[in-house]
Amino acid sequence: MPEEPEFTVTPYEVKGKIDYERLRELFGTQSIGPELLERLERAAGGPLPPSLRRGIYYSHRDLGWVLDEFGKHHPFFLYSGRGPSGPLHTSHLVPFELCQWFQERFHVPMYIQITDDEKFWFRPKLTREETARWGMENLLDILAVGFDPKNTRVMFDTRSIRAMYPLAVEVAKKIPYSTAKAVFGFPPSTNIGLVFYTALQTVPCFYPSWESGRSVPCLIPCGIDQDPHFRVTRDIAEGLGYSKPALLHSQMLPGLLGERVMSTMGDTKDNALFLNDPPKDVEKKIRNAFTGGRSTVEEQRRLGAVPEVCSVWALWRSKFAPTDAEFDGITRDCRSGALLCGECKARLIPKVHAFYSEHAARREKAKEYAESLIVVDAKRSPTAPSAG
Amino acid sequence: MPEEPEFTVTPYEVKGKIDYERLRELFGTQSIGPELLERLERAAGGPLPPSLRRGIYYSHRDLGWVLDEFGKHHPFFLYSGRGPSGPLHTSHLVPFELCQWFQERFHVPMYIQITDDEKFWFRPKLTREETARWGMENLLDILAVGFDPKNTRVMFDTRSIRAMYPLAVEVAKKIPYSTAKAVFGFPPSTNIGLVFYTALQTVPCFYPSWESGRSVPCLIPCGIDQDPHFRVTRDIAEGLGYSKPALLHSQMLPGLLGERVMSTMGDTKDNALFLNDPPKDVEKKIRNAFTGGRSTVEEQRRLGAVPEVCSVWALWRSKFAPTDAEFDGITRDCRSGALLCGECKARLIPKVHAFYSEHAARREKAKEYAESLIVVDAKRSPTAPSAG
Repeated sequence: MPEEPEFTVTPYEVKGKIDYERLRELFGTQSIGPELLERLERAAGGPLPPSLRRGIYYSHRDLGWVLDEFGKHHPFFLYSGRGPSGPLHTSHLVPFELCQWFQERFHVPMYIQITDDEKFWFRPKLTREETARWGMENLLDILAVGFDPKNTRVMFDTRSIRAMYPLAVEVAKKIPYSTAKAVFGFPPSTNIGLVFYTALQTVPCFYPSWESGRSVPCLIPCGIDQDPHFRVTRDIAEGLGYSKPALLHSQMLPGLLGERVMSTMGDTKDNALFLNDPPKDVEKKIRNAFTGGRSTVEEQRRLGAVPEVCSVWALWRSKFAPTDAEFDGITRDCRSGALLCGECKARLIPKVHAFYSEHAARREKAKEYAESLIVVDAKRSPTAPSAG
Repeated sequence: MPEEPEFTVTPYEVKGKIDYERLRELFGTQSIGPELLERLERAAGGPLPPSLRRGIYYSHRDLGWVLDEFGKHHPFFLYSGRGPSGPLHTSHLVPFELCQWFQERFHVPMYIQITDDEKFWFRPKLTREETARWGMENLLDILAVGFDPKNTRVMFDTRSIRAMYPLAVEVAKKIPYSTAKAVFGFPPSTNIGLVFYTALQTVPCFYPSWESGRSVPCLIPCGIDQDPHFRVTRDIAEGLGYSKPALLHSQMLPGLLGERVMSTMGDTKDNALFLNDPPKDVEKKIRNAFTGGRSTVEEQRRLGAVPEVCSVWALWRSKFAPTDAEFDGITRDCRSGALLCGECKARLIPKVHAFYSEHAARREKAKEYAESLIVVDAKRSPTAPSAG
């Protein structure tokens, strides 16, 4: 028997120092090798985004199959989601930025799920009004990533429920409580909403197939913590007559204070760059961020710093050094001691400011069409027979 | 410790020979005494229906409170429901007939719930299309009981979900899995839909209060097997800012073959009078029905029969002998041996035929307005704050 890992990763708990390679093995997913990346680059007809080139996305299920199908003129759709419990921070955008890249290169539909019901069920103190309000706020930030409004639909759970529920009902019948308990580690005190919820997170995976009556492959970029939901989905897919959704799993970005994961749940707001932070807070957070530097300038010049543990390097890596030349230069100079942490931070700050201001402009524009993307009714009769 | 009872009664299982008095004690409900009946008759301004006069309704929770409130010009609303798994039989109408009486005497709103999701989750072999189709069929039979369309609303789960879901989400957060497991006796293999479902059965209890923003007392006539659902509802009501629903519990009518309960689930269709049975089947079923008679005419003339175990007597009791004079006459002549079973059945058959033909005419009429009674949207903003 393998030893118990020293970390826990479920959609409801991320705890301990995560060994991502070990986690991948535990979850039974595939690693993303250079061959698959090259194949993806060829299919995309252009360079991969930083998150794929630099191993932030490091694991997958069935990505090769999605590309096979695409090659046979059988395009996929994208799906990712957000549980709205507060403002988004930059890490939350990671899956959406990858989705946006896929949409731009492959011209495929994007489904965004806003799980305001789930967050209400999960967080004892949040009201339904709060999660619904954060849902709209978060949706604007997600749309600001640059999705094509003509090819994007939003499933906002409490507002899209009439369209979602018939399929959710079919999905729920296939999932025994014992599966939900085993996969999510639910204690008996878990409320029955949260027990039911995984059915709703499965709905978008099958929705385009269900609605159109023909099979549409689904590709889900998400944090690897979300894999348990989709394992349940994959297990029941064929029994319902649908294909299993494919997944691309990212590691979770480290927090600015050196904690393992940027989080909205931590005790301090200083651990993450929230998209609603004013510029002076952004600057202050970056200035105070945990790095891989040494205790003195002299020591750092001599020994160099350690980028792999540095929260500032993680920001460069994720998107603020878009070209490899820039990113490799920063990494090399960090490691050699040529680039000190203060200077590195000073270089990053204007880039982050620029991102914030472009993001704010796109977000403002998204207000014009966000409501119109929310699915209200299925484009089929709610009692029509299933595709399955 | 009291002995374990030799029967099981939950919304999902009715088993063994039910001792109704013992069941009432186990459930902790109140018996309906002559004083309460007199009070109800005074408030109604007219005679009670047979099901109340003859003890078919024998247990309650908070009926006195509902009458107190009514006396203070604070009227209640009625709620009862149906899980659509097949055609209705005459016993299914028992709660709706009582609701119709209340509506006529007290001029109060009626809410009918059709739980097509629940029956799909509960019955392994039924499809969602079948439960939805039976839902509409059953609804027509229920409306044919004679509800005032201007004062009646239908919550058809999969079709009313947009209106119901926000309140269902709030309810579900208050119900731990452990409660559902304990109350309904769910094994771990129970699907997560059925686990969630009790939240939806609670929704109509609070819906008029939630929608209007003012407290409206709820009265639920139902089979006593449904009490566990509403115990859960009553437990969480005050925490959500609503008053506990009041209940009127009926015994379950015995089947025509002498089984304890008329059922759609039994092996044989001969145990119940289905509302879609053609007249010749109705006649045949009554002719073959189990009675409390003796093995020979001579013996029956001498010893009399036993009405209490007789399925035909149960039909007279429920509604086919509306006046006490007629009912008491039949009961007396049965017991004395003056009335033989064949003659009793021959007397009943034309009454049942007459009921079927009047019912069919009213059902036809209900087709004109049934759709219009189904709640689609709440008459409030889905994100407005709760009454609670």
